[in-house]
Amino acid sequence: MSFQYNEYYNGTTGLTVGVKQVLFSEKSPYQMVEVYETDTWGNLMTIDGMVMLSEKDEFVYHEMMTHVGLFAHPNPKRVLIIGGGDGGSAREVLRHTGVEHVDMVEIDEAVVRASKQFMPEVGDFDNPKLAVLYEDGIAFVKNVKEPYDVIIIDGSDPVGPAEGLFKKDFYDACYEALTEDGILTAQTESPWVPSYHDSISGLFGILDEVFTVSKMYLAYIPLYPTGMWSMAYASKGIDPLSDEVLKRIEKGLPGFNTTMKYYNKEVHQGAFAIPNFVKTLLS
Amino acid sequence: MSFQYNEYYNGTTGLTVGVKQVLFSEKSPYQMVEVYETDTWGNLMTIDGMVMLSEKDEFVYHEMMTHVGLFAHPNPKRVLIIGGGDGGSAREVLRHTGVEHVDMVEIDEAVVRASKQFMPEVGDFDNPKLAVLYEDGIAFVKNVKEPYDVIIIDGSDPVGPAEGLFKKDFYDACYEALTEDGILTAQTESPWVPSYHDSISGLFGILDEVFTVSKMYLAYIPLYPTGMWSMAYASKGIDPLSDEVLKRIEKGLPGFNTTMKYYNKEVHQGAFAIPNFVKTLLS
Repeated sequence: MSFQYNEYYNGTTGLTVGVKQVLFSEKSPYQMVEVYETDTWGNLMTIDGMVMLSEKDEFVYHEMMTHVGLFAHPNPKRVLIIGGGDGGSAREVLRHTGVEHVDMVEIDEAVVRASKQFMPEVGDFDNPKLAVLYEDGIAFVKNVKEPYDVIIIDGSDPVGPAEGLFKKDFYDACYEALTEDGILTAQTESPWVPSYHDSISGLFGILDEVFTVSKMYLAYIPLYPTGMWSMAYASKGIDPLSDEVLKRIEKGLPGFNTTMKYYNKEVHQGAFAIPNFVKTLLS
Repeated sequence: MSFQYNEYYNGTTGLTVGVKQVLFSEKSPYQMVEVYETDTWGNLMTIDGMVMLSEKDEFVYHEMMTHVGLFAHPNPKRVLIIGGGDGGSAREVLRHTGVEHVDMVEIDEAVVRASKQFMPEVGDFDNPKLAVLYEDGIAFVKNVKEPYDVIIIDGSDPVGPAEGLFKKDFYDACYEALTEDGILTAQTESPWVPSYHDSISGLFGILDEVFTVSKMYLAYIPLYPTGMWSMAYASKGIDPLSDEVLKRIEKGLPGFNTTMKYYNKEVHQGAFAIPNFVKTLLS
């Protein structure tokens, strides 16, 4: 029963991946969650027909979604992840041993269940510093009592339940839910895909309005549309490219430099280099 | 007669692109050259079933294959392009108005003919500074009389006629064919594709042996396998990241900064940031 999974992202252009078998397929109250066994990427999760991660390439997305913000902050203790149900972002955050508590607010428990069962290496769900809350992240952020040092918006594409993650009232609430040195990172789609252009330019416009510092950065993610993925960094003042931040990355965490697969100081800096056609999209 | 063009690069994983019509299809003495009309990428050229370029994304490859080396050199006058039959690399080289002569040595005239007819904006074939020679680039390099300031290896993948472009005797000859300040750049496949790993590590080993400076750099090319493409920079001494080079890029060429679509100073620097898993491949 093998077949080709096809995801079209620009007219008739797309990704094709052979599926050896369907391991998980569930229509949750929010979305269609599926896990496929593949020949070369390990197990692969899709939501509503869009690749979320594979076991073999997830390290890029999760390292870049987390360490860019965590290293920029001088002393991150409380971290909030909106979405991120596969657990990979929380795993990377928890490698920063100074972090005391992570709240992961995932609307769909089916995503967590699928990840735990079929991608057991991705999450670190038994870590006592991690609380998994099955709630609407947008409502959650509007009711935060104790602020966070870093907020990571690890949502899916701006259709369905993640649509609100691209709106101004959500980022106003994130700003309020952050400490004085607070930093936010978010996934912001591929600049190569025309249907994302409005979401990207809209979101960076909002971040620019709400935060003191806001910048795009990029990562190579082979199973995401076009392989070029953008992310947002926003803060109440901390520049992610300051000498202080770069020194902190160079110093690293205990055991850090031996185990990262993608992230390093040069990658942190280089990710903020934006090609001219992408700058045009943002201006 | 529309159909899906499929290119598999990692087991059953690949790119799929809808073809509206076949514009060019010719089995040359060297390879199968085809040009397809697509819905979102303009016309697309493939060689032996591998994407070479589309009209919409070619700017990334051609800007990054040329400007990284051309700006690193203080005064490039003579440039040699091995391969590059579509004409895009020569076009970008010729934007450096100090360049006096470009030899483009393309083994297969069918590639040039297909590009001229179906990708008329890609090449700058009427430029009087450009000489197009239909010869074997490997033999050509071994017989260079007047050396070049920059050599650009714009060949296809390391199978078929381009296989010799990944061997030591070729790079020894390139070294000899370069001036004292000489610089070489080359396309070196995707680090994400396991079947390329031996070619990549082998080639960088050779460059390291033959040249004083050798470095990998990266670019986002959406229609190439995985979207992450590597290139090589090698020189007899010039560091591509020196202050002098960066100042030169910042200063730019007449009209340069207004017209580049991908390349800028930050992109030049950032492209040399290599993720850890790629460093492992090179070590």
